Amino acid sequence: MTLRVGVVGGGQLARMMIAPAVELGVELRVLAEDDGMSAALAATAVGDYRDADTVVRFARDVDVVTFDHEHVPQDVLGALVDAGIAVRPGPHALRFAQDKLHMRRRLDELGMPQPDWAAVSDAAGIEAFLAEHGGRAVVKTPRGGYDGKGVRVVSSAHEADDWFTALAEDGRGGELLIEELVPFIRELAQQVARRPSGEVRAYPLVETVQRDGVCAEVLAPAQRTGEREQQVTSEIAVGIAEGLDVSGMLAVELFETADRVLVNELAMRPHNSGHWTQDGAVTSQFEQHLRAVLDLPLGDSSPKATWTVMINILGGPAEGGLVERFGDAMARHPEAKVHTYGKSPRPGRKVGHVNVSGDDLDDVAYAARAAAAVFVD
Amino acid sequence: MTLRVGVVGGGQLARMMIAPAVELGVELRVLAEDDGMSAALAATAVGDYRDADTVVRFARDVDVVTFDHEHVPQDVLGALVDAGIAVRPGPHALRFAQDKLHMRRRLDELGMPQPDWAAVSDAAGIEAFLAEHGGRAVVKTPRGGYDGKGVRVVSSAHEADDWFTALAEDGRGGELLIEELVPFIRELAQQVARRPSGEVRAYPLVETVQRDGVCAEVLAPAQRTGEREQQVTSEIAVGIAEGLDVSGMLAVELFETADRVLVNELAMRPHNSGHWTQDGAVTSQFEQHLRAVLDLPLGDSSPKATWTVMINILGGPAEGGLVERFGDAMARHPEAKVHTYGKSPRPGRKVGHVNVSGDDLDDVAYAARAAAAVFVD
Repeated sequence: MTLRVGVVGGGQLARMMIAPAVELGVELRVLAEDDGMSAALAATAVGDYRDADTVVRFARDVDVVTFDHEHVPQDVLGALVDAGIAVRPGPHALRFAQDKLHMRRRLDELGMPQPDWAAVSDAAGIEAFLAEHGGRAVVKTPRGGYDGKGVRVVSSAHEADDWFTALAEDGRGGELLIEELVPFIRELAQQVARRPSGEVRAYPLVETVQRDGVCAEVLAPAQRTGEREQQVTSEIAVGIAEGLDVSGMLAVELFETADRVLVNELAMRPHNSGHWTQDGAVTSQFEQHLRAVLDLPLGDSSPKATWTVMINILGGPAEGGLVERFGDAMARHPEAKVHTYGKSPRPGRKVGHVNVSGDDLDDVAYAARAAAAVFVD
Repeated sequence: MTLRVGVVGGGQLARMMIAPAVELGVELRVLAEDDGMSAALAATAVGDYRDADTVVRFARDVDVVTFDHEHVPQDVLGALVDAGIAVRPGPHALRFAQDKLHMRRRLDELGMPQPDWAAVSDAAGIEAFLAEHGGRAVVKTPRGGYDGKGVRVVSSAHEADDWFTALAEDGRGGELLIEELVPFIRELAQQVARRPSGEVRAYPLVETVQRDGVCAEVLAPAQRTGEREQQVTSEIAVGIAEGLDVSGMLAVELFETADRVLVNELAMRPHNSGHWTQDGAVTSQFEQHLRAVLDLPLGDSSPKATWTVMINILGGPAEGGLVERFGDAMARHPEAKVHTYGKSPRPGRKVGHVNVSGDDLDDVAYAARAAAAVFVD
């Protein structure tokens, strides 16, 4: 018997599932968008994930289908289910990750701590929300946003008119999500894995540092976090995983304010906030995701070091590829774990990351930042 | 630019290079002996490694050729070198791993501590050696032996007659290696990585437990090892790596006697005694081998845990495959790291291994043994 996992999408998250799949002895099959994608080594098909026939054909003979991203349309997910293929996370769960308004409504039902939010369908709605929230707020397109895209801080009613127009034109419904601008102290992320049969395991709470709307650094575990805060965030993430019937990895991005944590975003897949687990946890998020979607018992999510720091390589070298910098980075930082995604450098693009573990957070963070900096200029 | 490493041989050692190659962003190309080998995912060619044309054709366009095993004939290695292809370790180094008499002679020249040994060409030679060494000794075929094959304990002169006959018939020279039966306390292994440009890094000394001539367990680091013993074995391994001009990983298998250590065998590739590094060291032996043969700076070889224990899965289940036992093994031992090789179970065959790390050696060893035992019956 061979266990076969089909992954829709050939990006770096699919790529990073290859290593644990090979080690465990799970066959990974990737439906890539194009030739030469990050996960090309495991690509068994190239095609459009928005085409139901393509995806269903790809998924024949796999034990379960999972995802590199959350953009597979509901009709395609439905076609998979209709074809008798196990889809994890399932369409009903993925909808919460695909539609932020749907997610906000459900999290309210579950009693999860959230920023103030509203669904607005015109400038007047924005105006009213701004009036109640200090004159500034965050407007988000409910669908299609990631890494800061589809997110805009506004301070006047007409700053999202173009989005209302676009929404009306493509028939995706006329509502935008508006949220209070949370005066957060820092951002946190809580990951949890959940099997369809119910087992859940939480990872240590981590601290994430965003720059220009993109994750730049992750400190694991989050500093100054006691058992109580860990318990609170674990319970939130487990509650969401169960409440939304997520299977696989779930990342809950959180704002920490002076007196509580608020749920910012969700991701139902391995997530940038968990790349540290590749070198810093007993079971990496990529192995855990495979185990979870296969409904295998979950692995130990404990950290292997006092501190692990993950630094994204954003953009990459102005000239040449990442490989040209290997010598330099490795000579200066033999303790650094370098991960690259096989992507061409481009300003702001996530092309790799570096993990460093150790006992002293300042040393670890400095080494990780310095090693990653070798790859960027 | 892409870095390309060609690996001759599609076994589990090539397979275990896939994960670090993918993570680093190094392209691995494997010449497999057959379809469906352990490293099939990275196989770009299938063919006979004893055929120079096949190997040279495979190796075009790679930056360096390295090996899953040490059986590639010298004429094939020579053809690679003649074609201008970088071969690491090089033919001159590999010869020491291919021919145990050649190795013993060279280690004597280097002043390395060895068991008493002799080259014998007939029963009289064995008789004479037995007479001087208590009536029992180990006879080895200089070439072609591994995992206990080509090794025989003898107590009378004619017990190796069949080997002399076979050697004479196939024209491989008429000598066998005979060695004293070392009254060892335990067996140890010292790994070291070396770059062609000279950098070396030693791994922690480990303890290996053999059963029926096959490695069964590895305890990392070796128990009751002080800095001084570590220094002695590191110096031996570094001295051999330099004296034999090894590039890549070198494993030195050692006997520990009451008052010293003696060199038993060498392996110029990643080695079973270093599988613990996949989960227990900052840089695994597989990543380190890739870095070394590419002449990249070596990674930190420090352990990540107080103890890591590796248990081989030997034979596998009597019925079904390893995968059928995943649920059981993972449920009982969430801390166990399970590695399988995509090989069919067969009595005595190495089909996978389990690593467990932690602070208490008894707990760690028990968990690793128990998890591995789930896969065997």
